[in-house]
Amino acid sequence: MIKVVKIGGNIVDNPVKLEQFLTDFAALEGHKILVHGGGKVATTISRALGIETTMIGGRRVTDAETLKVVTMVYAGLVNKGIVAGLQGAGCRAVGLCGADGGFITSRRRSPEPVDYGFVGDPESVDTGLVADLMARGITVVAAPITCDGRGGLLNTNADTVAQSVATALAGAGHDVELVYCFEKRGVLADVDDEDSVIGDIDRERYAELKASGAVAEGMLPKLDNAFRAIECGVRSVVICSAENLLVDGYGGTTLH
Amino acid sequence: MIKVVKIGGNIVDNPVKLEQFLTDFAALEGHKILVHGGGKVATTISRALGIETTMIGGRRVTDAETLKVVTMVYAGLVNKGIVAGLQGAGCRAVGLCGADGGFITSRRRSPEPVDYGFVGDPESVDTGLVADLMARGITVVAAPITCDGRGGLLNTNADTVAQSVATALAGAGHDVELVYCFEKRGVLADVDDEDSVIGDIDRERYAELKASGAVAEGMLPKLDNAFRAIECGVRSVVICSAENLLVDGYGGTTLH
Repeated sequence: MIKVVKIGGNIVDNPVKLEQFLTDFAALEGHKILVHGGGKVATTISRALGIETTMIGGRRVTDAETLKVVTMVYAGLVNKGIVAGLQGAGCRAVGLCGADGGFITSRRRSPEPVDYGFVGDPESVDTGLVADLMARGITVVAAPITCDGRGGLLNTNADTVAQSVATALAGAGHDVELVYCFEKRGVLADVDDEDSVIGDIDRERYAELKASGAVAEGMLPKLDNAFRAIECGVRSVVICSAENLLVDGYGGTTLH
Repeated sequence: MIKVVKIGGNIVDNPVKLEQFLTDFAALEGHKILVHGGGKVATTISRALGIETTMIGGRRVTDAETLKVVTMVYAGLVNKGIVAGLQGAGCRAVGLCGADGGFITSRRRSPEPVDYGFVGDPESVDTGLVADLMARGITVVAAPITCDGRGGLLNTNADTVAQSVATALAGAGHDVELVYCFEKRGVLADVDDEDSVIGDIDRERYAELKASGAVAEGMLPKLDNAFRAIECGVRSVVICSAENLLVDGYGGTTLH
C-alpha cells in the first residue's frame, strides 16, 4: 500500500512540530509520499518584498510576483527543508514540484468569476516517475506548485495536489490510502469537544451527518473531496492530527 | 556520453539569455545534466529581508538566515524556473538539490582561516539516482545547495558542484564531458581580444601558458580545477560562452 500524507501550515510553520512529524513520517512503514502546503512564510516574505497579498474567500491571489515568492518558499525553502530533515532521519527523500519531470500538469483556473492569477487545478499526474522512485526506496516530497506544460508554473492547493496524486496512483493500479493531517484530531461529532472524534464514516453515515447538521460546515468540502477520491479508487481517506501519525488507525476519522 | 553543463549568474540573471540557453540546451543531443549557479536575486532578496550580505574574497558568507534565502532562490525560484522552461521546450527535466535522495553530501567548510558559515564542499555524489533518471530520458537540473547528511543544508559553489558530479559520473564508468558556460567565449590568448580564443589546451600547453603569463590570473583556479577533473577521468572540459552551446566544439576552449 502507498500512503499519501498531506501536512499543512500548522505543521510547516512550526519547527518543533515539523521535526517531530518528520521523525514520525520517517518511521512510517511501507511506500509513502508527503505532500506539503506552504504556510505563512510566503506572506511574510511577500510583505518584506513589498508585494501586496490579496486573499479572496481565503485563497491567495497569485500575481506574477507572488508566483515567484510561492515558488521560492514552497518548492525551495519548505520542500528542501523537509527533504533534508527526512534524509537526516534516515528516510531517503526526493523533493519534487509539479514541474519536475512533468509530474503534475494543471489547467490555469478561469479568470471568471474570480481571477486568482497564476493558480491551477491538476489535470494529469504522471505516476511513472513516482513509482520508479518508490521502487528505489525513495519517498517523494511534493510541493504545491504545478506546471501548465508550456513552461509556466502555477500555484496549486495542496489538498488538491494530495488528492490528485492519490487518485492517479489508484488509477494506475496501486492500493492507496490518503491521509490528511489536520489541526484537529479528526471529524468531530461536537465541534467544541476534541474527544468526540468519529472513528469511521461511510457514505451512509455521511449522509446522516449532513442531514442532521452534525458536521461543521467547513468540513463539508473536505469530506466531499475525500469521498470523490474514494469513488476514484482510493481505498480510504483519513483525517487526523499530525501528532497521531504512528497511532494505530491514526486516532482520527477514516472515510471509506 | 554525458554532458554536464554549468551556467552561472550571467545567464541565470538574464531572462532573455536564459530562455535562449534553455532552448539550446533542450536541443542538445544525448544524456545531459545542467548545473546552475544562483545569480544576484539572493542578494536582492536578502536586502529586502534586512539580511546583511557579507562577501569575503568574492564569496558569500552564509549565516542561518542567508542559508534560507539561498535555498529559496537557488533550489526554488531559479531551479524550478529552469525546470519549467526545459519542460516547455520539450526536455523532460527534474530539479534536484544535493539533499534530494542524498544526491550530493558535503562537508561543512572549516571555520579556519575564514568562517563562511553554512558552506560546504562536496565529499560524495550518489550517481545512481541521476543515472536512473537519465535512463528514463530525464535531465537532472542541479541547484548548488547540498546536504551534510544529518539534516542540514549547505551553500555550495556551483562550479564545484558541476565538477563533483562530472567526476563522480566518470568514476562510475560513464564517459563525461564537463562544459562551463562563461562570460567570455573561452580562454583568451589576449584578455582584451575576444577573438583570441585558444581552441585546445593540454597539460603541456597549459604549462607554457602559465610560464609565459599569457593566461589571466583569474582563469588559473578554473583551469587547475578543470585539469583535476580530467585527472579523475572526465574526458574533456570545455570553457565556452552559453551562446555557443550548439556550435561545433562550442567555439570555446577544450581542455583535455
